Amino acid sequence: MIPGRKTNKNLHAVIMAGGKGTRFWPLSRETFPKQFLKIIGEKTLLESTIERLRGVTQPENILIVTTAGQSELVRWQTKETLAPDCILVEPEGRNTAPAISLAAFKKRKENKDALMLVLPSDHHITHLEAFEAAINEAVAAAEAGNLVTFGVIPDRPETGYGYIKSGKPVRKNVFRVESFVEKPDARRARAFLKDKSYLWNSGIFLFKAQTMINEIKKYMPDLYKAFSGIEKQLGTDQETAALESVYSRIEADSIDYGVLEKSKRVFVVRSDFGWSDVGSWSALGEIMEKDEAGNIVLGNSVNMDAEGSIFFSSGRLIASIGLKDMVVVDTSDATLICPRERVQEVKNLVDKLKETGKQEYLMPKTEERPWGHFAVLEKGPGYQIKHICLKPKARLSLQMHNHRSEHWIVVSGIAKVQKGEEVFYINKNESTYIPNTVKHRLENPGMIPLKIIEIQSGEHLGEDDIIRFDDIYGRTKH
Amino acid sequence: MIPGRKTNKNLHAVIMAGGKGTRFWPLSRETFPKQFLKIIGEKTLLESTIERLRGVTQPENILIVTTAGQSELVRWQTKETLAPDCILVEPEGRNTAPAISLAAFKKRKENKDALMLVLPSDHHITHLEAFEAAINEAVAAAEAGNLVTFGVIPDRPETGYGYIKSGKPVRKNVFRVESFVEKPDARRARAFLKDKSYLWNSGIFLFKAQTMINEIKKYMPDLYKAFSGIEKQLGTDQETAALESVYSRIEADSIDYGVLEKSKRVFVVRSDFGWSDVGSWSALGEIMEKDEAGNIVLGNSVNMDAEGSIFFSSGRLIASIGLKDMVVVDTSDATLICPRERVQEVKNLVDKLKETGKQEYLMPKTEERPWGHFAVLEKGPGYQIKHICLKPKARLSLQMHNHRSEHWIVVSGIAKVQKGEEVFYINKNESTYIPNTVKHRLENPGMIPLKIIEIQSGEHLGEDDIIRFDDIYGRTKH
Repeated sequence: MIPGRKTNKNLHAVIMAGGKGTRFWPLSRETFPKQFLKIIGEKTLLESTIERLRGVTQPENILIVTTAGQSELVRWQTKETLAPDCILVEPEGRNTAPAISLAAFKKRKENKDALMLVLPSDHHITHLEAFEAAINEAVAAAEAGNLVTFGVIPDRPETGYGYIKSGKPVRKNVFRVESFVEKPDARRARAFLKDKSYLWNSGIFLFKAQTMINEIKKYMPDLYKAFSGIEKQLGTDQETAALESVYSRIEADSIDYGVLEKSKRVFVVRSDFGWSDVGSWSALGEIMEKDEAGNIVLGNSVNMDAEGSIFFSSGRLIASIGLKDMVVVDTSDATLICPRERVQEVKNLVDKLKETGKQEYLMPKTEERPWGHFAVLEKGPGYQIKHICLKPKARLSLQMHNHRSEHWIVVSGIAKVQKGEEVFYINKNESTYIPNTVKHRLENPGMIPLKIIEIQSGEHLGEDDIIRFDDIYGRTKH
Repeated sequence: MIPGRKTNKNLHAVIMAGGKGTRFWPLSRETFPKQFLKIIGEKTLLESTIERLRGVTQPENILIVTTAGQSELVRWQTKETLAPDCILVEPEGRNTAPAISLAAFKKRKENKDALMLVLPSDHHITHLEAFEAAINEAVAAAEAGNLVTFGVIPDRPETGYGYIKSGKPVRKNVFRVESFVEKPDARRARAFLKDKSYLWNSGIFLFKAQTMINEIKKYMPDLYKAFSGIEKQLGTDQETAALESVYSRIEADSIDYGVLEKSKRVFVVRSDFGWSDVGSWSALGEIMEKDEAGNIVLGNSVNMDAEGSIFFSSGRLIASIGLKDMVVVDTSDATLICPRERVQEVKNLVDKLKETGKQEYLMPKTEERPWGHFAVLEKGPGYQIKHICLKPKARLSLQMHNHRSEHWIVVSGIAKVQKGEEVFYINKNESTYIPNTVKHRLENPGMIPLKIIEIQSGEHLGEDDIIRFDDIYGRTKH
C-alpha cells in the first residue's frame, strides 16, 4: 500500500474462487483445488489473493464468489481475515459470465457507483506496488465507463497464456484493446514477444458494476434478463431460492467470450507486476527462488546432481539421483514424477487414473470407520483439517482431548452435538467450536449422510489424545 | 527336487544371513536388510533360499548363520519352515571366514562326514533343476576332499560381479580353478564374455567340513586355533560364552581371500542356473518379467509412456509420465527416484542422508508414544510386524483385540506379561503368544529398554481394534 494513500471507497474486489482442476494433482484434488493449497510460501493462493488487496480496498469491500461445493473451504480460509458475509455462493459453477453478472447486480444494488476489481483466487503476483499502481491507472478509465483489463508485459515466449493485443494509447500505460488472442504456438509466441503491443491476459478486470450490466444487457441479453428478474431478491432471505431458480436454466459462458471480446469499451492497462497464473507445477520455476543448479526444493528432499528440477514434498522424504528438468510431487497417498516439459499432461494422467479404477486418488485420502469415513485434507504445524462423513444414525464416542480444540462446520446434513452439558443441533453451513478438555460427542440424527469439515488445532494432534467415555461400536477409542 | 531322488543325508546347507546393506534403500534399512524383504514375488529372499533347498537336503540339515542383531528377524521368517535350533548366532559379524569356520567346526562335531553347501541368503536362482544338478555334480569332488565353487556362465558383460577363471577339466562340468578375478571394467568384462573360461563367482560353495577345517588350519592358523580352542564348548550351554570370547579377539576376513584364493584344492562347477546376486534395484531387470515397453511394475503404479523403468511401491500410488530407464521406489516414509545406470550410487545417497541429519530414514519409520516408540517393519495382507521399544518401568494399557492375535519376541531387556489371568516374565530370545479376545498387558519391569518384535496377525489390524481397560498414561487407548 502506498503510504498515506486512501483507498477508493467505491472500489470493491470480487475474487473468483469457483475453479476446479487437477493440474496440481496429486496435491490438488477434484474436491480440493489449487486456490486452497499452500503451493507458494506460508499462505494458500486464496489467502495471498486476499492479502494482496490490503492496499487496494477495505476488507468489507471484498467479495468471494464460489460454488456450494467449495464454500466451506472458502469459509475456513477466510475466517481470520474477512467477515462471514464476504462469500457469495453460486448454486453451481457456470463459468465466469454468470458469476460476474451476479456480483455486478449485487454490488450495484448496494452502491450504484461501485467499481469492481475482478480477480482469480489462484494466481500469483510478485510486485505488489506495480500491481497497486496498475489498479490506480485503471480506475479513471473504469469510472469513465470502460471495461479495463490488465495486460502483463511478456518476458518469455509463453505458449500457455492468452494474449491481449493493445491498440491506440489512451493515456500513460492505458490502451484500447485491439483484440484478444488465444494461446499461440511457439512461433507466434516468439513474434508476440518482439512486437511490444502483445500482452499476457491476466484475467483481472476493473469496471463499474453499472458498465458491466450495460454491456451484459447488450451482448448477453438472456443472462441480463435472468439476473434483472431476481434483482429484488438479492440480499434478502429469498436470494438462495432465486439463485437456484436462475442457475437451473442459465448457460455456462465466459465473460471473455460473452462480453469482453465483443464490447467496444475495452481498455488494457500495460504493466509488469510479476504475474503468473500458477497453471502447472512447472510454473513454480517462474515464481520461486532456485538453487545454484536451477532446482526448486520445497519440503523434505535430498537430491544428488539434480538440475532444473522441482521437488515438492508434503512431509515424506524425496531422495533422488541425477534428475534433470523433472517434477517430483509427493503427498500422503501418491507420488508424481514427470518431466517439466510434460506437466500439461498431468490431466491425461488423471484421466488414466479414472480409467484404471483409481478414482480414490482424485479425492483426499479416505479412512473407513464403523461410523463412516474421514479424509485428512491438510496437515500443518499445529493444525489439521479433516473431512468427516457420518452415516445416518451414526454416533461418535463421547470423548475429550487434552491438547486440541476442534471447529466443526456442517457441509451437508444435520448434526446433533453434545458439548459439555449442552446438547444442540447444527445445520448446513453452521458451525460450532469444541475447546480442549470439554467432553463432546457428534451424532448424525438424520436420514442422509452428515458431512462436516473439522479443523483441529493444538500443539499435539495425535490420535492418542482421545479420551473415550462411551462408544456404541464397542470400542473405547474411535 | 528330482522325483524319487533321495537327498544325501551327509549334506548340510549353511545359509549366511548376516549381511547388512542399504543398496535396496528405501525398502531395506540398516536394521532390516534385503534378505528379509519381499523384493521378488511373495516370499522374502531368505524364505526363497530355504525353499530352494527342499530338493537338496532335509530341513533339519539347514543351518542359518546370523548375527545377534538379526537373529530375531531370522527366527520370525523361519518359524513356519525350520526348527528353532536352525539358527547359529554369531555375537557380531566378522565377514565370511569366521562364520564358515564356526559352522564347519559345529558340523564336523555332529557328523565327521558332513558336507556343507554354503550359500548366501539374499540371492536369486531361477532354474531350480539346473541348480540341483550342479550340486549333484559337485558332491563327488567335495567328498574327494576339494573345495567346490559354483561358477555361472555369463550372458552379458557384467561389471558388478567377481569372476572365476576355470582351468583344467576334472570331469563333466567340473574344472580346477585357475584364479579368482575381481570385478572387471567394461572392456575386460566383454573379453570375459567371449572367453568361455570365465564364470561369475556365485558365492556358493560345497565342501566337507573336515576339508575346510584342514585348509583353515593351513592358511588361517589363528582362526583355526581360536575355534579349535572352543570345540568342546560347541553344542553345550557354554557355547554362547565361548563364542563371545572368540569373537572379541578374531579379525574380520572373507573366506575367499583367506582360503579359496590360496588353497590348491579349489574346483568350480560350471553351470547356468539363472543366478543373480540381487545387488541393486536394477538387478530386478535381469530377474523379473517386463511389460512390452521393458518396464517392471511392482505394486500400485500408473505410468504413461514409461520405458525400461522399474517401479516398486509398498502401497502408495506411483504415477509417472515419460520416464526412461529410471528406478522409482516408494515406501511409507521415503521415495527414491534414480536413473537405472546410477543405482550403485544409492549408497552415496544414504551417506548424504547421514550427513544432512536424516538418519531416521535409515531406520524403519518410528512413532513416539508415552511409553516409548514403535516402528512398523512390514505390513502385508493379514499381518503386520512392529519393532516395539518400552522405556524402563513403562507399562502399556491392559487391552484386548477382537480381530488380531499377537506374537511377541523379546530382543533385549525383560518383559512382564499379563495374559488373561496369568502374569509371567519373558527374557531375551523368548516369546509368547496372545490370542485374540484375551486381555493382555506388556510391561518393562527392568532398568534398560525392553525391545520386542511383535507380529500381529488377523483379518483386521487397525488401530481401532484396541479395547482398553486400564492405562497409566491417562488414556483409554494406546
